[in-house]
Amino acid sequence: MDNIVRLKKLLRGHNLDALLVTQPENRRYLSAYTAGDLSINESSGALLIPRRGQPMLFTDFRYRLQAEREATGFKVMIYRRGLLALLKSILGELGVKRLGFESHYILYQTAGKLQKLAAEIGVEVIPEPGLVERLRIRKGPDELDKIRAAVRLNEEVFHEVYSQLKPGPSERQVALRIETLMREKGAERPSFETIVAAGPNGALPHAVPGNRLLREGEPIVIDMGLVLDGYCSDMTRTVVLGRMDEITRMRFRLVRQAQLAGIAAVRAGVTGREVDRAARQVIEAAGLGSTFGHSLGHGVGLAVHEAPALSVRYQRKLRAGMVVTVEPGIYLPEWGGIRLENMVVVTETGCELLNEDYTFLDV
Amino acid sequence: MDNIVRLKKLLRGHNLDALLVTQPENRRYLSAYTAGDLSINESSGALLIPRRGQPMLFTDFRYRLQAEREATGFKVMIYRRGLLALLKSILGELGVKRLGFESHYILYQTAGKLQKLAAEIGVEVIPEPGLVERLRIRKGPDELDKIRAAVRLNEEVFHEVYSQLKPGPSERQVALRIETLMREKGAERPSFETIVAAGPNGALPHAVPGNRLLREGEPIVIDMGLVLDGYCSDMTRTVVLGRMDEITRMRFRLVRQAQLAGIAAVRAGVTGREVDRAARQVIEAAGLGSTFGHSLGHGVGLAVHEAPALSVRYQRKLRAGMVVTVEPGIYLPEWGGIRLENMVVVTETGCELLNEDYTFLDV
Repeated sequence: MDNIVRLKKLLRGHNLDALLVTQPENRRYLSAYTAGDLSINESSGALLIPRRGQPMLFTDFRYRLQAEREATGFKVMIYRRGLLALLKSILGELGVKRLGFESHYILYQTAGKLQKLAAEIGVEVIPEPGLVERLRIRKGPDELDKIRAAVRLNEEVFHEVYSQLKPGPSERQVALRIETLMREKGAERPSFETIVAAGPNGALPHAVPGNRLLREGEPIVIDMGLVLDGYCSDMTRTVVLGRMDEITRMRFRLVRQAQLAGIAAVRAGVTGREVDRAARQVIEAAGLGSTFGHSLGHGVGLAVHEAPALSVRYQRKLRAGMVVTVEPGIYLPEWGGIRLENMVVVTETGCELLNEDYTFLDV
Repeated sequence: MDNIVRLKKLLRGHNLDALLVTQPENRRYLSAYTAGDLSINESSGALLIPRRGQPMLFTDFRYRLQAEREATGFKVMIYRRGLLALLKSILGELGVKRLGFESHYILYQTAGKLQKLAAEIGVEVIPEPGLVERLRIRKGPDELDKIRAAVRLNEEVFHEVYSQLKPGPSERQVALRIETLMREKGAERPSFETIVAAGPNGALPHAVPGNRLLREGEPIVIDMGLVLDGYCSDMTRTVVLGRMDEITRMRFRLVRQAQLAGIAAVRAGVTGREVDRAARQVIEAAGLGSTFGHSLGHGVGLAVHEAPALSVRYQRKLRAGMVVTVEPGIYLPEWGGIRLENMVVVTETGCELLNEDYTFLDV
């Protein structure tokens, strides 16, 4: 409930009587209720955190037992005719006059209905994007332990698969083997759809594993992550079966140098933009800047992509306890791609590397 | 492109110059572009369908090659500073004056920015929830073939797992086996997280498979579905290992009777509410009405949950070519649950059952 206490402080600062929490990871962060949403249209519940008094979890019949088991300290309330009808009566009972809502994670249609019902009962609704995210962005010691465990398990899976990797199977088969092992070893699920992209397919940063068979000599991009106890890992390796030719080796070294430059630039007080720049200029100096079309990295926690960003558009400063990926890549249509991704924790003086794996990192 | 032609007709009817399509299944339905969204915050693109002229797909660098490969007939445009910045310039070029947007699948924040930019360039934006869904709700022959194949493969996976099912493994292990087999047999992915809920856990309609081991004599709810060639299947069986006791048998028969009553009620011209009622009254008559807390069924297609609904709130009429699940269930805390789910295609005179499997359906 420590997170609730911290949130209540923010509510006071924003002069809100309560916050309606609809974003799934925020819901889990505050309540320990683990149910996910199949999509934003199919929510497994919402929280109402009043500035004073007991927090509430609204959900439907299907999740009642799970909610009661997991969200200890919360009053669990079941809606039959949708969240908003229940909310309307509760807001009156609680005497809420100013209600914040997560304007960054609510459908336009739902927000419209919320505004209408609030007007009917004289409640002011205020868009409050990112209040809970502000708490989530710096990780506490318990969270870092969970992230470390998720990284460790991800590496264990990678090693088991990589040690048996030979030419022959399809990208799809390898991805399936990875995701099966993740679950066998206790992961809740992959944190995103595993990428295994061989040869030219590696030129798609978000390739979907297909029927291409692994062959000797071509770069194979493997981007994988898992969720363990709610927290995510995310790692990319690019490997070559058999001999690596000189051009591949050169390109590989370039990406690795960019990654090392990025990691070296991370520390509290530096902006996400500056870290992105440090890595990007290595690739630009080699004349391949235009092939590195995505940002250098992103925060990782309960969500696999969360704040902060290491990108040209992120001008805020990193702070100790933030966890980010550092993942430069180059993508050459016809030929393929190379991406290398590690995770680090920002510290006052630099960063702590969360990965132990060195597969193909220094060739 | 047939779907595009039908949509353009709707645009004329609604006096729109173009529609912005942000909903992932709608995007796939119209363009054949298969990339999914990790979440609504992380879109892999949007379509702009002008009433006249070539449709466009907007996406970012990471998806360029995939978009160009898959969305034939579309002009693929890459944004670097987000969708809206690109959209602004395109709307001007096309001379769009009235732009529809999918108000049921766009974030409040995004819609706000869209409205602001539209005002700046003198474009009127009009909320148009469900235009493409109106096309998707009735399935064409090709779509029905794909759905049949997805149902068939799902049953094949179920049989392979069920034929080897013995007391011993955990719910989690069985769910993993199911999802692994789905992929090995060629499914894109499960259409939702597979449910294996043994004994009392079956009392949670949306149980997450856990460490409980399968035992003889208790009901085990298995709810599973897969995506094949974009289309979903969804099926629930409740099975008992070893001898089924009398109380379980009675309850089982009750749910099956409710299911048969529901299926018998399905035909073009009947409302979703009426079908729900037909099944529900069987369970109510047995005094267990309050334990059947969800609706009877939902549409299935590119999304595993889509229109129409078989529920008390759905008062529109079913029409031929709609595909729905029929899935009554009873949920008794402490004891467990029984749910049975088949899929049917609505026809003019009744319905076509898509399932062939009869495991434990008539005991």
